Amino acid sequence: MKKNIETFLGCDKEWSAANIVIFGAPFDSTASYRPGSRFAPKTMRGESYGLETYSPYQDKDLAEDAAVFDGGDLELTFGDTQQALDDIYDYAKNILSAEKKPFLIGGEHLVSLPAIKATYEKYPALRLIHFDAHTDLRDDYLGAKLSHATVIRRVHDFLGDGRIFQFGIRSGEREEFAWAKQHTNLRKFDFIGLEDTVAALNKYPVYLTVDLDVLDPAAFCGTGTPEAGGVTFKELMTAIMCVMRTGNVVACDMTELAPPLDVSGASTATALKILREMLLAW
Amino acid sequence: MKKNIETFLGCDKEWSAANIVIFGAPFDSTASYRPGSRFAPKTMRGESYGLETYSPYQDKDLAEDAAVFDGGDLELTFGDTQQALDDIYDYAKNILSAEKKPFLIGGEHLVSLPAIKATYEKYPALRLIHFDAHTDLRDDYLGAKLSHATVIRRVHDFLGDGRIFQFGIRSGEREEFAWAKQHTNLRKFDFIGLEDTVAALNKYPVYLTVDLDVLDPAAFCGTGTPEAGGVTFKELMTAIMCVMRTGNVVACDMTELAPPLDVSGASTATALKILREMLLAW
Amino acid sequence: MKKNIETFLGCDKEWSAANIVIFGAPFDSTASYRPGSRFAPKTMRGESYGLETYSPYQDKDLAEDAAVFDGGDLELTFGDTQQALDDIYDYAKNILSAEKKPFLIGGEHLVSLPAIKATYEKYPALRLIHFDAHTDLRDDYLGAKLSHATVIRRVHDFLGDGRIFQFGIRSGEREEFAWAKQHTNLRKFDFIGLEDTVAALNKYPVYLTVDLDVLDPAAFCGTGTPEAGGVTFKELMTAIMCVMRTGNVVACDMTELAPPLDVSGASTATALKILREMLLAW
Amino acid sequence: MKKNIETFLGCDKEWSAANIVIFGAPFDSTASYRPGSRFAPKTMRGESYGLETYSPYQDKDLAEDAAVFDGGDLELTFGDTQQALDDIYDYAKNILSAEKKPFLIGGEHLVSLPAIKATYEKYPALRLIHFDAHTDLRDDYLGAKLSHATVIRRVHDFLGDGRIFQFGIRSGEREEFAWAKQHTNLRKFDFIGLEDTVAALNKYPVYLTVDLDVLDPAAFCGTGTPEAGGVTFKELMTAIMCVMRTGNVVACDMTELAPPLDVSGASTATALKILREMLLAW
Amino acid sequence: MKKNIETFLGCDKEWSAANIVIFGAPFDSTASYRPGSRFAPKTMRGESYGLETYSPYQDKDLAEDAAVFDGGDLELTFGDTQQALDDIYDYAKNILSAEKKPFLIGGEHLVSLPAIKATYEKYPALRLIHFDAHTDLRDDYLGAKLSHATVIRRVHDFLGDGRIFQFGIRSGEREEFAWAKQHTNLRKFDFIGLEDTVAALNKYPVYLTVDLDVLDPAAFCGTGTPEAGGVTFKELMTAIMCVMRTGNVVACDMTELAPPLDVSGASTATALKILREMLLAW
Amino acid sequence: MKKNIETFLGCDKEWSAANIVIFGAPFDSTASYRPGSRFAPKTMRGESYGLETYSPYQDKDLAEDAAVFDGGDLELTFGDTQQALDDIYDYAKNILSAEKKPFLIGGEHLVSLPAIKATYEKYPALRLIHFDAHTDLRDDYLGAKLSHATVIRRVHDFLGDGRIFQFGIRSGEREEFAWAKQHTNLRKFDFIGLEDTVAALNKYPVYLTVDLDVLDPAAFCGTGTPEAGGVTFKELMTAIMCVMRTGNVVACDMTELAPPLDVSGASTATALKILREMLLAW
Repeated sequence: MKKNIETFLGCDKEWSAANIVIFGAPFDSTASYRPGSRFAPKTMRGESYGLETYSPYQDKDLAEDAAVFDGGDLELTFGDTQQALDDIYDYAKNILSAEKKPFLIGGEHLVSLPAIKATYEKYPALRLIHFDAHTDLRDDYLGAKLSHATVIRRVHDFLGDGRIFQFGIRSGEREEFAWAKQHTNLRKFDFIGLEDTVAALNKYPVYLTVDLDVLDPAAFCGTGTPEAGGVTFKELMTAIMCVMRTGNVVACDMTELAPPLDVSGASTATALKILREMLLAW
Repeated sequence: MKKNIETFLGCDKEWSAANIVIFGAPFDSTASYRPGSRFAPKTMRGESYGLETYSPYQDKDLAEDAAVFDGGDLELTFGDTQQALDDIYDYAKNILSAEKKPFLIGGEHLVSLPAIKATYEKYPALRLIHFDAHTDLRDDYLGAKLSHATVIRRVHDFLGDGRIFQFGIRSGEREEFAWAKQHTNLRKFDFIGLEDTVAALNKYPVYLTVDLDVLDPAAFCGTGTPEAGGVTFKELMTAIMCVMRTGNVVACDMTELAPPLDVSGASTATALKILREMLLAW
Repeated sequence: MKKNIETFLGCDKEWSAANIVIFGAPFDSTASYRPGSRFAPKTMRGESYGLETYSPYQDKDLAEDAAVFDGGDLELTFGDTQQALDDIYDYAKNILSAEKKPFLIGGEHLVSLPAIKATYEKYPALRLIHFDAHTDLRDDYLGAKLSHATVIRRVHDFLGDGRIFQFGIRSGEREEFAWAKQHTNLRKFDFIGLEDTVAALNKYPVYLTVDLDVLDPAAFCGTGTPEAGGVTFKELMTAIMCVMRTGNVVACDMTELAPPLDVSGASTATALKILREMLLAW
Repeated sequence: MKKNIETFLGCDKEWSAANIVIFGAPFDSTASYRPGSRFAPKTMRGESYGLETYSPYQDKDLAEDAAVFDGGDLELTFGDTQQALDDIYDYAKNILSAEKKPFLIGGEHLVSLPAIKATYEKYPALRLIHFDAHTDLRDDYLGAKLSHATVIRRVHDFLGDGRIFQFGIRSGEREEFAWAKQHTNLRKFDFIGLEDTVAALNKYPVYLTVDLDVLDPAAFCGTGTPEAGGVTFKELMTAIMCVMRTGNVVACDMTELAPPLDVSGASTATALKILREMLLAW
Repeated sequence: MKKNIETFLGCDKEWSAANIVIFGAPFDSTASYRPGSRFAPKTMRGESYGLETYSPYQDKDLAEDAAVFDGGDLELTFGDTQQALDDIYDYAKNILSAEKKPFLIGGEHLVSLPAIKATYEKYPALRLIHFDAHTDLRDDYLGAKLSHATVIRRVHDFLGDGRIFQFGIRSGEREEFAWAKQHTNLRKFDFIGLEDTVAALNKYPVYLTVDLDVLDPAAFCGTGTPEAGGVTFKELMTAIMCVMRTGNVVACDMTELAPPLDVSGASTATALKILREMLLAW
Repeated sequence: MKKNIETFLGCDKEWSAANIVIFGAPFDSTASYRPGSRFAPKTMRGESYGLETYSPYQDKDLAEDAAVFDGGDLELTFGDTQQALDDIYDYAKNILSAEKKPFLIGGEHLVSLPAIKATYEKYPALRLIHFDAHTDLRDDYLGAKLSHATVIRRVHDFLGDGRIFQFGIRSGEREEFAWAKQHTNLRKFDFIGLEDTVAALNKYPVYLTVDLDVLDPAAFCGTGTPEAGGVTFKELMTAIMCVMRTGNVVACDMTELAPPLDVSGASTATALKILREMLLAW
């Protein structure tokens, strides 16, 4: 008799047969406002049965046209941020060592840091494309260097100037926007210029990090710090297709879904659809 | 002293004076994911007092410019699908026999099947216009022939090829989309082509079935399987006006509002406004 | 790399090593009032990580002192009641054939019917102990013979007079209470007499069916038809220990947790604790 | 064809045939903390279909053993307290003039004031029995003389000393408790002494006003100002039976259910059961 | 040791140093449908810590580029509408007397009435710009002259013909729209014509009253009477900038956020962002 | 004009005049299951206006019979546990240095650790009385030494054997209960023996730490890990009075209220009442 095994719908390949590995990082300890993103991977897995594996957008099917292994969720320590990040780092490292592509599902945005680090170590020429409502460029937040509000700044610590491309940004401190002018390429509010950026990066390995709060709260209210004035679902889909289809994305992630904040379930369903389309376009 | 009688706001004509009859089918037994549409007719009735009877869109008033009888809600058996469908069929039949036009309020989408059947028996040249996020074209769902996921396929069983016109579809299995190519006219994602379709059907009796999840979850999160990428409220209103004003709509329905899933009440209010506009445009 | 396998906490024995098999029947199609019990097995599994495997009540540990296989959840058809009951029947039959003891997790109370039937076929001298707020003795409900409101009446169809022992009952129609006087042993409101009943049944195989709404809503509001005036958690625990420790319980079940109705999660946590104690006492 | 008429379950007698008239006063404008009791009558009516008409406590059935007319809900002005109270007064007056007994369903506790006034005018020897968590004896509240927090003080204005009997009280200002010592009979926390009170009042017409927050929040969390340390459902049932069966209750009410505050529905179900038992015992 | 003082984020100037004073009017007693706007000022204050003080739209910062005193919330009597309005009037009067600009935060829309009155008394040439889904032009509502549904009609009582400019209106009775044709300038559905209106009013003092339900429910479901078909957040922002930057706005308000109706918190966050932008643009 | 200052109701003494200082520690980063206790101090403050300052239990009034300074909430770093604990430690130290008594409001239970440590350093003979559902005696939790699940074990690190007295415990690992037998005095399930313990400790300074989940979920569902089988509100009140009135309590705390998990507000109201009674009894 078969046991009940819960994976993301259609992500049921064996490790050896897969070229993409998805895994969850259920961590939200540094969330300063409303926690809840820790429940995202588990809730997405459980709700994925409401989604079709087939995409009418791309005429592809997860069950047939993708080779994805679901690595499950890491069991992370709450309250010890460094330890949690180390565990994520190790898992991402393993995936990359096996010449597979990691797709991390947060958790808060800070979980992207170790995944980007591990990817950078394998691909030293790495560029980062960053979709978000927030700059995430503080140097510290209430004294903490490791925080959802500092994650891109920490990435800059090793990636350096000119390698970070931010889109959809509409919230941050004056200092963050000023700092971005010197060190990153920041596009406010929308995705204008993305196509050119993608074209210009076609020689480089790319990591795409999607903080789902880049979406307008109308489309996605299940997130800790909803920011009005965001992009629509269709705009995000177009932007994601633009990046994922280029062929040089070596790793990616999706963060900041907080399922308890959208009791209708629509935000989780939307995240799942974005996940499906990203996997199929990859 | 008068008793408390709760009807949809403004739908208070006598049976004999009415040319339209609305009635509720509070049934959601085949809902595979999240039930709740059973509560739609009752909740809509109760909340209708928050709506004005007057439409500034059409400059008409339900209390003055329409003749609608509210037949109340059918008392349907849960767990015996065939019996429930038979009861809906009988009631629709009664309305049509009295030369009135039925407007069914679901419930899950499967409740449309007997209403379309009864209408088809009166109008053998019937055409179906179908607004939905889902194809609803499976031949069976987990072994069941009667399911919210098979309803349009079951309609095809008697209506046949070339008589079903689907709009807004953005979810289904690969096989369903392939099957649609042979047997129905399916428009993905939006309403492009609707005007031409309506014009081409101007000689035929038309049944309009509106699965409210055709709306984007931003506009309507109170439904069991929200699908991002849908149409806006304004697009749906335009599409509905386009169909309802043609003069040859002989019956219609509205399904899949699940009030418990949108605790803000906005989805119910939106469904009520669509109901008002459909009744006034008819 | 290990996959994510979600079982009830501590119920991780292999099939061959287990003497108890738990399995979920996520079905609530006949729920006439508020559905939601379909989500019970899945939610209980997911939330079981908040529970300790050790019981300070019995000084036993699920991981060490029990041998339970988690069979997962059956994939049941919604809307075709007979088909769903047949699938449950088949699974229970399998467990019993392997000389193991089935523990069914509902779903609505109707799912108990096929499990009791299968157990009765193996143990023709079977007696039923029934904890519930409701008599469940209607002959039909809105015309349906198979319903959560008729389940014990359907059990009586094959079990016959004098073999059903009901406790905690506080809701039903006048006719049901009158019928019970002729055909079952019904104790209103509480568990008085349970010890004597258990003693008197010590020669017979016993099936224990626990409709969790026997609990007072103060202790358990996450159920479709909460009935004030019920038993406390401690009273239920005492009653369950009284039955489960006798040695002649051959099968049991637990039904009618509806997780969406108790957003605090306390009802799910309570159901899990009862499950743990039942398994450890068995 | 019959229209949909929604009444409290089993309260379907004609006006002429009824000796009890229930009516709703959906008013909560003076609620200083959390409103919501305005929704109580409507929600209770809608949910009453989940309740049996038969009481196993009293072996009586609302459909057979009571003659209750449901007068529906008054359409009250919000924001004009005096006007709302006048409308309630008029309706209660009508019922009493027809030699029937009024049973008012709030709404906030202030709605009791005009009903008690009307009853007092018909029965000048009236005594008031008051179950509540709060004294409701302030002389004004934030400057307002008419408030849920002053209602019993306003009743005292015409009823005078020694005629008000309060039970279950566990919240109020020091001044209120001091004032009660002079003017009312106040029993803190529980119902001790109620039987003696009832016996002593057997020559007088009695009005019973039940603020449902007399219940402990464990049993009834759906109320605007839950106060821990209250009575259990069983204690309240015993107390209510004690009063209602005496034969000299001429009017009564039940207030302060706020359905939106208990999303499980258990508080509404509990209020309905208390209503059923009060009607059957009357 | 410092005490905990909670103000709107960044609105921490001293009274003497401020040229704008924000204050809350937590009143919703005339809400006929769903109350909850009483909680808006308090919830906005509490949640304001999730917002940045810096606006990337205007490149200004509340902490540096504005001089706002937070006057806290008025302690208003519930149930005595006139008294509550008088208290609001007095406070607005005080602010205006000190040659500061009042920014009122509701509460239901009726709270605007005394603030507009006080402003009109200081600026007799006052014009009103009104963003709303509803006309608010009834002469009475269920008999009450003072109601959220009559507020603009009451303003007209003293302001007179031709001085009220309404935008975004999409709900009301036929009579209200007819009345508007004679007495106000009403633009249905959107902001077309606003720029011209603003230009034409450049010689007059202007009061801007924003009923937040002018927004589409997709963007703002946390309000008592959500009306589909509204403006987007970006459209509202553009409209607000258009008015606030003209230099002749002497007072303004924002009403009808009902935080309990949007449990995701997105509506409150959106209201806060609009508040920030209005303050910075002023 | 006065600013809006929000304190716990009645806790409005100046620092110099107070002998008790309450302060909030809004921290829940190590919560492994459901976070939310971070919102407790702020929510309690905001909701405290629904509570009376007068206690009919003790005939005392917070405004007249207590001298409490409300120190507000500490601004704690999320994700850096040690830093957060250090900040709590410093504040507790300050209070104790000023010869005042600290009353800490969590937050998760881990926040008690630095407060107990600071108290111990001032009173080396300190004894700890611990009310909880959980032993909290793990040596580490998922590798972390500092966790809500290890807090009493960490206290034992400096307090040593025989000085910790635990009551109401009903959840933990087998090893924790075994360890308790050697090192603490642990009473399962209830408060039996508490009076004797209090009497025996009458020569020692006592710290009382109350994890509110010691209450049964019926009385208190707003907590992260509800455990059925707990004590009633009245039992807890009696136990608290027994300890607080002895005269030798030098510090105390209350933790693990998670307001978002009880949307009715009853758990917050209950916590507030316990706080009031503890302050008045102290």
